[in-house]
Amino acid sequence: MTQLGPITEDPLGAFCSDSDAFIPGADSGPLHGLTFAAKDIFDVAGYVTGGGNPDWKLTHEPAQSHAWVVNALVQAGAAMVGKTLTDELTRGIFGENVHYGTPVNSRAPECVPGGSSSGSASAVAGGLVDLALGSDTGGSVRVPASFCGLYGLRPTHDRIPLDGILLQAPSFDTIGWFARDPATFAKAGAVLLGSTFDGLHPKNLIIAEDAFQLADPAVAAALRPHVDLIASLLGGSSNEVLSPRGLAYWSAQQQVLQGREAWESVGDWIDLVNPRFSFEVSERYTLAKVIQDEAVEAAAAVRKEIVSRMDEVLAGGAIVCLPTTVSPAPMKGQRVSDRHELRLKNSQLTSIAGLCGLPQLTLPVAEVDGKPVGLSLMAGRGGDEALIALAQNVEASG
Amino acid sequence: MTQLGPITEDPLGAFCSDSDAFIPGADSGPLHGLTFAAKDIFDVAGYVTGGGNPDWKLTHEPAQSHAWVVNALVQAGAAMVGKTLTDELTRGIFGENVHYGTPVNSRAPECVPGGSSSGSASAVAGGLVDLALGSDTGGSVRVPASFCGLYGLRPTHDRIPLDGILLQAPSFDTIGWFARDPATFAKAGAVLLGSTFDGLHPKNLIIAEDAFQLADPAVAAALRPHVDLIASLLGGSSNEVLSPRGLAYWSAQQQVLQGREAWESVGDWIDLVNPRFSFEVSERYTLAKVIQDEAVEAAAAVRKEIVSRMDEVLAGGAIVCLPTTVSPAPMKGQRVSDRHELRLKNSQLTSIAGLCGLPQLTLPVAEVDGKPVGLSLMAGRGGDEALIALAQNVEASG
Repeated sequence: MTQLGPITEDPLGAFCSDSDAFIPGADSGPLHGLTFAAKDIFDVAGYVTGGGNPDWKLTHEPAQSHAWVVNALVQAGAAMVGKTLTDELTRGIFGENVHYGTPVNSRAPECVPGGSSSGSASAVAGGLVDLALGSDTGGSVRVPASFCGLYGLRPTHDRIPLDGILLQAPSFDTIGWFARDPATFAKAGAVLLGSTFDGLHPKNLIIAEDAFQLADPAVAAALRPHVDLIASLLGGSSNEVLSPRGLAYWSAQQQVLQGREAWESVGDWIDLVNPRFSFEVSERYTLAKVIQDEAVEAAAAVRKEIVSRMDEVLAGGAIVCLPTTVSPAPMKGQRVSDRHELRLKNSQLTSIAGLCGLPQLTLPVAEVDGKPVGLSLMAGRGGDEALIALAQNVEASG
Repeated sequence: MTQLGPITEDPLGAFCSDSDAFIPGADSGPLHGLTFAAKDIFDVAGYVTGGGNPDWKLTHEPAQSHAWVVNALVQAGAAMVGKTLTDELTRGIFGENVHYGTPVNSRAPECVPGGSSSGSASAVAGGLVDLALGSDTGGSVRVPASFCGLYGLRPTHDRIPLDGILLQAPSFDTIGWFARDPATFAKAGAVLLGSTFDGLHPKNLIIAEDAFQLADPAVAAALRPHVDLIASLLGGSSNEVLSPRGLAYWSAQQQVLQGREAWESVGDWIDLVNPRFSFEVSERYTLAKVIQDEAVEAAAAVRKEIVSRMDEVLAGGAIVCLPTTVSPAPMKGQRVSDRHELRLKNSQLTSIAGLCGLPQLTLPVAEVDGKPVGLSLMAGRGGDEALIALAQNVEASG
């Protein structure tokens, strides 16, 4: 069991340094005795939700009440022991915050932890907490889970209420969580999803060929035995190219739609405050700001086609497997341009579930050069519980 | 006479707070007994040239020697008493630095001082120094001189050596200076230009109709008596539309060319460091980064036409007069979008000299609602001394 008071020592640099936020868990409940941390985009009453940016923090008032999801875990008995670092306004998947630093990835200390839920992943991976809340718009739970060797879910879109969080791009925003083991992961799932069975009986494993082709060959090879194990658990597998026009074509639609929504979420505040951002974050907002309406309309139309295509692939209870990230965590301190290329490549993997609102669970089954890398399972909308159950079976069979 | 030691009190917030830079003036010389400050883009041996950005400062080494222009003033007897604030990497004309604050405009305390040579203008206007060095790429001497009620020159391009300064866009970059009175201004000019007479005998005043139409009516009205005075000193005037296709068309060429050069100057550093900038500054670099080669080539061709047109206008020793800025200093804390519009409007005035490498001197002759606004005089290339002499005549006749 991890510490039940507020975080006083933070050797990983995972927590917001100016926050002593602590909420004791309810006296009883399924999570009693567990601790969790919350990414600093979740409201905690009495504290300013900082969003990983000093000017956001300076220009907002303390929250009046807890975010729905924070309250749900606390009511189930878990203690919230601190607020964790995030990429600025959740715009990033590597976890290097130019204002507050880079939380340590205990599993690969010279590498980034992944983001934007960087501090949450770091704190769980380093054993400072049992669970941690993150959000996933373009990969912000899945990527750090893959890089830090954790279980992490992007749930079905709209499955978990977004009340009391700093939104990025609402048609993509989801709340997810991290744990080191599938049993603890499932306990939180039962609370947050309100169920442990979703009626889905997974039947067939579909190996996403185009997704595996994107990954580094060493990653694909390291994941292969686990794919085979899952195929045997499900009673069979088949290979499929998800996107005949290419996954880059799909993720390009998300860039447009997510960019537009992100600008709509905070553009007025940016215009008013002229905040300090890293160049990289401002660059993304600037390119989002100039997206034209015609481009948005075209991308929205393509998005519908992508949703139909994935509905077809997942029909009848199929599960899709794919690499969570194309590589293990990269080294810290990359150039903006290098990070940009790697982000685009990873977003070809992460935007599938994002565009379609599908649940995707990453399992910390493999390593490459001693660094973790995750295998993802994706189900039809509402199949969150089935994925969690499957993860437990995989571990039991591994 | 102002203080001859290093600046110890800075009630205006004009100086870099972490710098005790001081260079005593030579024992004798034409500037002996005068003090000056240098914008923090000029090298001062032993100090890091900070450029108004904390990450620039953190990633650069102390200068090995003084900038040419700093040395020239010191050798002429002036003491350098401190380094002054600048807009980040000189990208701005309003003087609000999100990292270091906004130097006080003593003449209009609720308003911006103008930039990017904000601290230099503030320090001279507030009487902390006799002279101050700035740079002018897109208006960074002329605009703060107008807003703070000072004499300020953008010299002929290439007239004053740029050695030892943080460049922005070399085909536009110039070094200028500020003073409260034309006599002191002329003393520094004699040192920096090496001459007090350039062979130009100004003959006719050309009133730039399209430039005056851009200005607020109250500004045009306030400048009018001074235009008439100068016309009488020169023995006549005529009205002329400088740009038949519009001054916005001209300034659009500078946006492209200056943007490309600015990205070439620091783009690699930005890519390496991912610096913290205000959103506004990053936005300008991002839009500069994506400028295409074809656009640069087209703008370069138009620039040649503009140069020819202005050579024609200025032929025979003519002097052009125009408002320095479209308005007095705006209030502090404007929205990014409002500031953007105002910057574009002012750049229609400032880009004329910028594109053509022409000298332009602004005279603090007028006020609107108690706030200063400058009248500019522009000559053919090399006519710097004639402009300075004319400013002295105007004052003597006023």
